Amino acid sequence: MTDLGEPVHLTTKAEVLALDVVGIGFPLVDVLALAEDELLGELDLVKGSMTLIDHARAERIYAAMGPGTEVSGGSAANTMAGIAALGGTAGFIGRIADDELGRIFTHDIRSTGVVFEPVMLADDGEDTIETTTTGRCHVLSTADAERTMATFLGAGSLLTPAHVDPAFVARGQLCYLEGYQWDLEPAKAAMRKAIAAAHDAGGIVALTLSDSFCVERHQADWLQLAEGDLDVIFANEDEIMALFSSDTFEHALDAVEETGVLAAITTGPAGAIVVTPNGRITVPAVEAQRIETTGAGDLFASGFCYGLTHGFDPESAARLGNLCAAEIISHMGARPVADLAELAAEAGLL
Amino acid sequence: MTDLGEPVHLTTKAEVLALDVVGIGFPLVDVLALAEDELLGELDLVKGSMTLIDHARAERIYAAMGPGTEVSGGSAANTMAGIAALGGTAGFIGRIADDELGRIFTHDIRSTGVVFEPVMLADDGEDTIETTTTGRCHVLSTADAERTMATFLGAGSLLTPAHVDPAFVARGQLCYLEGYQWDLEPAKAAMRKAIAAAHDAGGIVALTLSDSFCVERHQADWLQLAEGDLDVIFANEDEIMALFSSDTFEHALDAVEETGVLAAITTGPAGAIVVTPNGRITVPAVEAQRIETTGAGDLFASGFCYGLTHGFDPESAARLGNLCAAEIISHMGARPVADLAELAAEAGLL
Repeated sequence: MTDLGEPVHLTTKAEVLALDVVGIGFPLVDVLALAEDELLGELDLVKGSMTLIDHARAERIYAAMGPGTEVSGGSAANTMAGIAALGGTAGFIGRIADDELGRIFTHDIRSTGVVFEPVMLADDGEDTIETTTTGRCHVLSTADAERTMATFLGAGSLLTPAHVDPAFVARGQLCYLEGYQWDLEPAKAAMRKAIAAAHDAGGIVALTLSDSFCVERHQADWLQLAEGDLDVIFANEDEIMALFSSDTFEHALDAVEETGVLAAITTGPAGAIVVTPNGRITVPAVEAQRIETTGAGDLFASGFCYGLTHGFDPESAARLGNLCAAEIISHMGARPVADLAELAAEAGLL
Repeated sequence: MTDLGEPVHLTTKAEVLALDVVGIGFPLVDVLALAEDELLGELDLVKGSMTLIDHARAERIYAAMGPGTEVSGGSAANTMAGIAALGGTAGFIGRIADDELGRIFTHDIRSTGVVFEPVMLADDGEDTIETTTTGRCHVLSTADAERTMATFLGAGSLLTPAHVDPAFVARGQLCYLEGYQWDLEPAKAAMRKAIAAAHDAGGIVALTLSDSFCVERHQADWLQLAEGDLDVIFANEDEIMALFSSDTFEHALDAVEETGVLAAITTGPAGAIVVTPNGRITVPAVEAQRIETTGAGDLFASGFCYGLTHGFDPESAARLGNLCAAEIISHMGARPVADLAELAAEAGLL
């Protein structure tokens, strides 16, 4: 709602040159609504999954949804907001349009302290629905606390290597990439540019596998990335099994261990398993009232990334991740409501 | 987000010709954020009050606010949404712009079942920030569960008598008017047109006093309205005392009783007092966890209006009002989350 041109609310911590983490992902505004199971069927949505949709389908889904609550989202953006809420420093790269949802996204991520300069390089072509519309994710929450997502990427889908400034990526100790980006060729090229920039600057690179269907689409690419481009993998059980075509979770853990990449695997109510070159560590979940699970994985990654960039051992980093995830599932929406730094201090983790 | 031109989600009950209630008010999208007390001071806002602001000040306030949650609001619109959630039929009149917040407002109120045809009559003049921007209310919630509101009315401020269709008002048994509307001369004229249309059709007219500062501005007008134009007054303690310049609440109750108008006075955690020509009835509040009080008065009015238009005696109508208020203060946001009709049935009120 504020002009996009001027920085809105840069906190002191965001003004420093060095950043803990730079994330790249789809900037989205989430439209949250409660839904009955039947509605998912009518809209051809698979419960618990994320479906990419075009604008026409987005209009149909929105029209069928109940009253909504709009709140800034996007997987990697949520993770960056969580890092800032822990007192860390984070930057975000993603493309929005010059519209109200873009202004809302910009206001919200900046007001958490994340450094975000909206990427709106002019295209040569005509205005399209993508160039003029910020992405949005329709999140349908059913009574079983599952959420089903239908995402119209809008301007987020137009990220290209030209939008990734190597100097900005180099400011981060860790470069955090959203797996969803691999669905689009120009964004994929942008990710490869970011990986090179991070490594050139001596930083490490993390990839979140995002969604098991997404893993199936990019398995070959990602297995290759795991052979040298990636330092950290974030995944849940389904995603890590899909990556290695494993028949059991145990086999998937064996496979990821062989790669030598540090892997943080969330296991829902059980917590997380960290796979390191020196073995596996099971880190139990932090107890929480489970209201709505959107953002649980994103916020686990906030805590884990904060830990990795602040000298924590992987087990302590995962404990912090579990704490952040517990906060996020205790309310609607995928950005923290409570003061994460205070919660972590109370729990003796900061 | 959906085209405004086509009805989005008219439920069967909204398609009937007769309506229980037709409300007129400012259509607003609320931008909710948590705030420290100090921020209110910095922004020159008085805790607990509603301040009308221009667009420039809205930009400054938004820039200083933390991450927001956007949810449809507006006092009379909330009341209509509550009536629909109880299973009643309601219509709403208010002016929005052809922008994203306007589309969000339209989607949300229609998806509750309220009949709403966006009022966007062309103006002769140039585009202004008012004609192009749907109104929004910045709601700053402090730790003491108080909320402080700063409202940019946008298109809502441009309502004139031309926008009030007497035939639509006549469809309601009860016409519900927002006191805030009296701050603008053309809207005030629109209210007078609605009052005439309702009475011509044999309906009754209710006014909510909205805010004690608003009462001070319009005391003379409203005392005159109470002498024949109004059938029901909604107010809280401060507002009813302001209306009669009373030094005590007791004196204000005496004064309103003398007018012969049915008055439903909310008394916060104590519940409500109904003043009828046959005496006063104290109706205790329904117990609730007090998270955020936005919309408590609006939703009390939902229950009371539903009761009045369904043959309830005033005490039972107030009980239903208290139940609706209890639901709304138990969560952020001023539109119901739980199924009000179910809650009311469980409580033996429906």
